Amino acid sequence: MSEKRPPPVRSRFPVPPLDDLPDDLRERIDAVAEKSGFVPNVFRVLAYRPEEFRAFFAYHDALMDKAPRLPGGLTKGEREMIVVVTSAINRCLYCVVAHGAVARIRERNPRLADQLATDYTRADITPRQLAMLDFACLVAEQASDVNEDDLDELRDHGFNDEDIWDIGAITAFFAMSNRLAGLTDMLPNEEFYAMGREPSKPRPRLVK
Amino acid sequence: MSEKRPPPVRSRFPVPPLDDLPDDLRERIDAVAEKSGFVPNVFRVLAYRPEEFRAFFAYHDALMDKAPRLPGGLTKGEREMIVVVTSAINRCLYCVVAHGAVARIRERNPRLADQLATDYTRADITPRQLAMLDFACLVAEQASDVNEDDLDELRDHGFNDEDIWDIGAITAFFAMSNRLAGLTDMLPNEEFYAMGREPSKPRPRLVK
Amino acid sequence: MSEKRPPPVRSRFPVPPLDDLPDDLRERIDAVAEKSGFVPNVFRVLAYRPEEFRAFFAYHDALMDKAPRLPGGLTKGEREMIVVVTSAINRCLYCVVAHGAVARIRERNPRLADQLATDYTRADITPRQLAMLDFACLVAEQASDVNEDDLDELRDHGFNDEDIWDIGAITAFFAMSNRLAGLTDMLPNEEFYAMGREPSKPRPRLVK
Amino acid sequence: MSEKRPPPVRSRFPVPPLDDLPDDLRERIDAVAEKSGFVPNVFRVLAYRPEEFRAFFAYHDALMDKAPRLPGGLTKGEREMIVVVTSAINRCLYCVVAHGAVARIRERNPRLADQLATDYTRADITPRQLAMLDFACLVAEQASDVNEDDLDELRDHGFNDEDIWDIGAITAFFAMSNRLAGLTDMLPNEEFYAMGREPSKPRPRLVK
Amino acid sequence: MSEKRPPPVRSRFPVPPLDDLPDDLRERIDAVAEKSGFVPNVFRVLAYRPEEFRAFFAYHDALMDKAPRLPGGLTKGEREMIVVVTSAINRCLYCVVAHGAVARIRERNPRLADQLATDYTRADITPRQLAMLDFACLVAEQASDVNEDDLDELRDHGFNDEDIWDIGAITAFFAMSNRLAGLTDMLPNEEFYAMGREPSKPRPRLVK
Amino acid sequence: MSEKRPPPVRSRFPVPPLDDLPDDLRERIDAVAEKSGFVPNVFRVLAYRPEEFRAFFAYHDALMDKAPRLPGGLTKGEREMIVVVTSAINRCLYCVVAHGAVARIRERNPRLADQLATDYTRADITPRQLAMLDFACLVAEQASDVNEDDLDELRDHGFNDEDIWDIGAITAFFAMSNRLAGLTDMLPNEEFYAMGREPSKPRPRLVK
Repeated sequence: MSEKRPPPVRSRFPVPPLDDLPDDLRERIDAVAEKSGFVPNVFRVLAYRPEEFRAFFAYHDALMDKAPRLPGGLTKGEREMIVVVTSAINRCLYCVVAHGAVARIRERNPRLADQLATDYTRADITPRQLAMLDFACLVAEQASDVNEDDLDELRDHGFNDEDIWDIGAITAFFAMSNRLAGLTDMLPNEEFYAMGREPSKPRPRLVK
Repeated sequence: MSEKRPPPVRSRFPVPPLDDLPDDLRERIDAVAEKSGFVPNVFRVLAYRPEEFRAFFAYHDALMDKAPRLPGGLTKGEREMIVVVTSAINRCLYCVVAHGAVARIRERNPRLADQLATDYTRADITPRQLAMLDFACLVAEQASDVNEDDLDELRDHGFNDEDIWDIGAITAFFAMSNRLAGLTDMLPNEEFYAMGREPSKPRPRLVK
Repeated sequence: MSEKRPPPVRSRFPVPPLDDLPDDLRERIDAVAEKSGFVPNVFRVLAYRPEEFRAFFAYHDALMDKAPRLPGGLTKGEREMIVVVTSAINRCLYCVVAHGAVARIRERNPRLADQLATDYTRADITPRQLAMLDFACLVAEQASDVNEDDLDELRDHGFNDEDIWDIGAITAFFAMSNRLAGLTDMLPNEEFYAMGREPSKPRPRLVK
Repeated sequence: MSEKRPPPVRSRFPVPPLDDLPDDLRERIDAVAEKSGFVPNVFRVLAYRPEEFRAFFAYHDALMDKAPRLPGGLTKGEREMIVVVTSAINRCLYCVVAHGAVARIRERNPRLADQLATDYTRADITPRQLAMLDFACLVAEQASDVNEDDLDELRDHGFNDEDIWDIGAITAFFAMSNRLAGLTDMLPNEEFYAMGREPSKPRPRLVK
Repeated sequence: MSEKRPPPVRSRFPVPPLDDLPDDLRERIDAVAEKSGFVPNVFRVLAYRPEEFRAFFAYHDALMDKAPRLPGGLTKGEREMIVVVTSAINRCLYCVVAHGAVARIRERNPRLADQLATDYTRADITPRQLAMLDFACLVAEQASDVNEDDLDELRDHGFNDEDIWDIGAITAFFAMSNRLAGLTDMLPNEEFYAMGREPSKPRPRLVK
Repeated sequence: MSEKRPPPVRSRFPVPPLDDLPDDLRERIDAVAEKSGFVPNVFRVLAYRPEEFRAFFAYHDALMDKAPRLPGGLTKGEREMIVVVTSAINRCLYCVVAHGAVARIRERNPRLADQLATDYTRADITPRQLAMLDFACLVAEQASDVNEDDLDELRDHGFNDEDIWDIGAITAFFAMSNRLAGLTDMLPNEEFYAMGREPSKPRPRLVK
């Protein structure tokens, strides 16, 4: 992040300059920029509130950045698929585009994000992933209606308690995220749109 | 919390015994029990995932437990009002009942929570609070529709950027919370229902 | 009703003074005040139209004030439960609060009304009562969709024709009631909020 | 009603034979049959519960069978228009067809009912009647949202308190009626479909 | 169409005089007028765009004006039934009234259109026709949700691929038609309202 | 289309081999393949019904393949934008992906389709285009609600009668198209996903 500064970032609230941020926020942002080549706008916009920024990304990392604990657990790509589908329900442009990019890369499928965002029931996914996304949509749309039958259907597809919690909690976290993006009028960085469109290119490093 | 143990807590996921929790979680829970006289079920249910527990309550405290920064900022009672109204939209029994109790106590109004949960437009609130809740409902229901006119309306009622962020971020956080409660099938503790119904009683200490 | 007059009653239409009412209306209202200790606002607001008042309360009493004809019929408490749940669908503050009070008292459960109003599927009720309320919601929301399968499900829970008519007709009557409350902007009397919150207190006499 | 008995009447509940009815019900039904030439099914189906029958028709008559109190008040035809439009929202076949017949006759317009049932905004009505029907739809769909601006709009069209109450109360009464029809699976008599289709024919006598 | 000219036709766009139309359009319109005795407004309103007019009616005729290919295929009356039901979903007055008239005539049932437009589940139709209309409603409301189970249900009622395509394609075509009517504010000709109401009259010739 | 045959095409109905098609259909398809390098699936799936195929594409070409008649008229790119936005409402994967590709190419903006499909209010478009898309959404969702104020708003942005008809008619046509895609379970060709993603590449020739 030394020479090249990111372009101005759109928000309805003040976006603090990187140099004014607390050290831990700036370090986190520098690390992201180092890996991805740019600073995703969510880091800049949420830095308006450092304490909330810390909790947000601690939560995010706990849910999104872990490999499956056991064979059969949710892959990182599947976690991103949940984000794309439920964010599309909420018409959250930031999350659909940013996490759509990551989903394409993780799943090495350049068409996946467009399918998930428009009609996941017709996407190139497994029946197990379809069940996962059906459940995520229920949590996104009317979580109070979740019942034991819904969990049994997931278990029939081989999901265990850890997986089911992950599906539900990721959906819940992005219910929050989508609303913060709407509140702040955050837009995705231009870089996200093109990422993962070329299946043959070497897999880029990425954050968020 | 020494002699008397809380009753078994309902969840669709394992609820770890208090003694098995990491020290920081147990200390936080003990402190709550000390102040409130009981352990709100959300602490027990979310302890299934300690890392997420830490992020959840760090986020919660950053949003809910601060006094207004400036005269005119959101009071603690108003923050609770936002939770009750938006949780009612999501039919989240835990949050409506638990935060309804806190709202009654903070606002010293035993009728407030019932009004907010059923029809906040007829509650005993100020026009400024009505505008606050209208905005919270918009963020809860379709955050992508928030626009500058909505913010101007809040500003006309004296809300500044800090306040508007608070209203939106509290709503976003409980969009997550409500979904976690639906996922886990969490129920409010019985104690919450009766709290704050007697306007003349001394104000109880409380957490969450 | 002798010394203490009720406070002014809110309505969008003229509220006739008690002394100006036809004798039969005034006698009915005096009897209610005698039993309950106050005059529920619905009596004052609907007195604007004496002929409609008479039909309204004749209908109300035919549906709500009868003991079960046979063992297994709807109890008075169950009738009130239907009112609370379907009035919450319509966001009718008057009916949720006034009938919530009666439901708490009839069922001797201080938590029941809050549960029913927010998410009846998580209330402390029997599977039979849950089926009753599912059916009431269907009648409240799309009565033209009621079909024989719905009635068979009720019959599986032991409801007979008399009971099913009662569930449906009570729901229908309060579909009207809720709309009259919205039309007139009627508010519940403050007394209702506190009634039935103390399970150990002697059961108060009440009307509506 | 002497020689010719009405055909069997469809209901999900027992339909008592005319001869078994209490005298006052039978007399009311005979009077209707005398005037209309047939017994509208609602009379037969609701006779299952004589006490509720009496309250229902007392209420109905109070709302529907009165001439405008003052010049400018709702005509009988306008009252029927409200019933057709709000019953169409609820997809109530009985009320749309039966009251559509009466609306055609009262307004001497053979096309009116079809217009009102499908899209009242394109019906052959006055701007005042359009405002009346807009308000009725609001009461039918979300009465808790009625506010002072809505009433002011009605007043701008010359409606006074008496009229506004009538619009709202008729809508409320048929919110009940529509649900009773759905509950019982009541069908309109065949006679209703053809009534009032011939503008030049002498105006028939009718009930309901 | 020689002596008597049709009355002025309502549209939000210019309605070209018949004499100014290209020959093929005028000939088609003359043929319709010859058969029906009047020119349905849709012909006049869509003539604003001759090229689109040609495609529209070519499409219409391909879907609506064919006899069943095999015994068991959709009758012309059943095709009209689909139009009435799905146009009622879209509150399209033109299509409900114009095709309602044709449905009455084709099915020789003067009550059918009113039933279909208000609540087709209570219409005088066969279980096979009910399944046909359920499927049409699904295509009208959320075609992306159509799945194999829906088709299997149709096959259980004896529909084959040709029939299923017909049901879906007719629904799709009138999804377009209904929107064109809304766009142009087209109204049905008065003649349509009365057609087919007299079951005993000789069957009139008709177009659209 | 000589050596390389397209891959098998998914449909719920028979997909006739190219060699079995009537000459005019095969010629049209060959011309498309020649220009685009592949045969868009819609041509193969709709060929099941040659007569409807002809009407469909005649209609399509009349609406989509014309340059603006006058300066200020809808560009070809704007026509595609309408398709993407309204097809996203209907969750039509085929139309969002296929016409999204064309929109990217026509507008030379590789990010446009993703923005339009998820939240067109945040897309890189002009206020005039935003008004155009707002109107298209109204026609797509409830065309019977279109009124004069809506047209005046378009006129304020410089749209004339020709343009307004185009916006409405394109929306209406794709309301049909989207439903045919859902009926047949048509999927977009893989080629569409990648088209127009590289802004610097020479503009490809394309059809549909």
